[in-house]
Amino acid sequence: MQSLIIGGCGFVGRNLAAQLLSSGESVAVLDRIPDSNGRFNGDSYLGDAQNAEFVSSVIQEVNPEVIYHLAANSDIQKGIADSSLDFGDTLMTTIAVVQACELNPVNQLVFASSSAIFGSVDGLIAETPEGFYKPASWYGKAKLASEYVIETFSKNNPEVGVLITRFPNVVGPLATHGVVFDFVRKLLKDPTHLHVLGNGYQKKPYVHVQELVAGIEFFRKQLQPGDFERINLGPTDTITVRQIVTEVTSVLGISPEVNYEDGATGWTGDIPHYQFDASSMQRRGFVIKSNSRQAIHQATSDLVAEYGEK
Amino acid sequence: MQSLIIGGCGFVGRNLAAQLLSSGESVAVLDRIPDSNGRFNGDSYLGDAQNAEFVSSVIQEVNPEVIYHLAANSDIQKGIADSSLDFGDTLMTTIAVVQACELNPVNQLVFASSSAIFGSVDGLIAETPEGFYKPASWYGKAKLASEYVIETFSKNNPEVGVLITRFPNVVGPLATHGVVFDFVRKLLKDPTHLHVLGNGYQKKPYVHVQELVAGIEFFRKQLQPGDFERINLGPTDTITVRQIVTEVTSVLGISPEVNYEDGATGWTGDIPHYQFDASSMQRRGFVIKSNSRQAIHQATSDLVAEYGEK
Repeated sequence: MQSLIIGGCGFVGRNLAAQLLSSGESVAVLDRIPDSNGRFNGDSYLGDAQNAEFVSSVIQEVNPEVIYHLAANSDIQKGIADSSLDFGDTLMTTIAVVQACELNPVNQLVFASSSAIFGSVDGLIAETPEGFYKPASWYGKAKLASEYVIETFSKNNPEVGVLITRFPNVVGPLATHGVVFDFVRKLLKDPTHLHVLGNGYQKKPYVHVQELVAGIEFFRKQLQPGDFERINLGPTDTITVRQIVTEVTSVLGISPEVNYEDGATGWTGDIPHYQFDASSMQRRGFVIKSNSRQAIHQATSDLVAEYGEK
Repeated sequence: MQSLIIGGCGFVGRNLAAQLLSSGESVAVLDRIPDSNGRFNGDSYLGDAQNAEFVSSVIQEVNPEVIYHLAANSDIQKGIADSSLDFGDTLMTTIAVVQACELNPVNQLVFASSSAIFGSVDGLIAETPEGFYKPASWYGKAKLASEYVIETFSKNNPEVGVLITRFPNVVGPLATHGVVFDFVRKLLKDPTHLHVLGNGYQKKPYVHVQELVAGIEFFRKQLQPGDFERINLGPTDTITVRQIVTEVTSVLGISPEVNYEDGATGWTGDIPHYQFDASSMQRRGFVIKSNSRQAIHQATSDLVAEYGEK
């Protein structure tokens, strides 16, 4: 199978590429930045995924059966201060990809959406909320708008199978951002202190990127032409930031002084707690084996190995 | 007929409200600002159209047969510098309106889109471009994304008639922005000088707001449940900014010293020239009587009368 990963040099993209390659698939990536990690040895196309003409030309050259659209602004906090990051990199990339796919037939389109589209919700978050989507960050708003764009594409292209997977917090190797990445990097530099944004009681689900990628592939492989699937992909439990600190420091074998802030959220637009209703995922036969604590534990080990220091 | 105009206190909204009321229709408006003009005497709901819960509560109270969604950031230039204006006021209002309409049945939904979704294009702009949409401003990008949101709503709600009208530059009474508004206001203050953004050779179509509103109603009245119509609404000719200066100063009876700048565009994101393919509009039986020059002439007279000075 020939695939094209748009945003293939980001955190999830690199892991997806690695997993596809190890399964013997052909993988091309399109990204604005080269793979700094240097592990990817498939075809690489350097350019801006907001440019529909460029995306279209790459699709023509690669002729993929499957397109994964993972390009997005990954710095949600920075996007709070400057909405153009999410408006451009998260939403306009989606419009460019959809326009390019209108002109170049593909069999399947997979889109990476996010728990951020829901905002602060009491109780479990199902695929379709009872009330309104209330994204609190421009990132969440751009992902929500992108889902509408993808849905329109799906309705207008009944020969394509379309999958939208909503990610919770994702952790693991080749990370470029996120709480575990931040903690590990900071603690490798200074194992005596850790400053934590927020009061540490933010409580969310975390998935290991390799299980996430397995989930994407599980549902993608079942797609039939004309399908339009939306799946919340994540563990059923949650973990607090304070528990993450315990887990990370335990793997590192250190006891730093930890400072917390007063606020319930780590930063403006942060969602202090949420929990996926994973029943749809489970009913369809996919199981995430690691709970949030185990995912954090594994991700910490992965990153320690990656940065070669302990 | 009971209607609700979201963004009813803006330029087009005020004119639409006036025309509907004069036809004996019931009109309610939802806007973040009150009607500063004071001419509207229907029901008025003050609040942010980005808030889906608020929009939904107003729809429940008004119980409209028709919803016109005209809410948007009207200062395209300001939106270039701060994309959150268009991301919020132009796009997120659309997502809120669509979410509210999902929960509260309506018969018809009319959305005001724009020539700005196309960007710089050689030749006539048809409803569906041959290549790609290339909006140059966040305003154009937000309107383009909004069209996808509206299209998804239409596909999921086959009992609703949905109309998207793309506006060119609009001029006329009760204006809050735009080139004629700027020129008239400046020249009423200082009839001896006029500074013009750009070299004056920007060449675009202009429609008088009353003809635009007549066009919206012409196509809305033909909507059947399940229809999803997209119409470019504008005159077939264009006029340069230099010709607009001639027209405005002629109506005012003055001969100011006029300064032009060097650039081909008035400001970053300005589209220096475009022209609608109006064949779809014409084939369907709607004619815009005034050419661009006549629209400018009439709009100048309207604004001079409105500001009570000559």
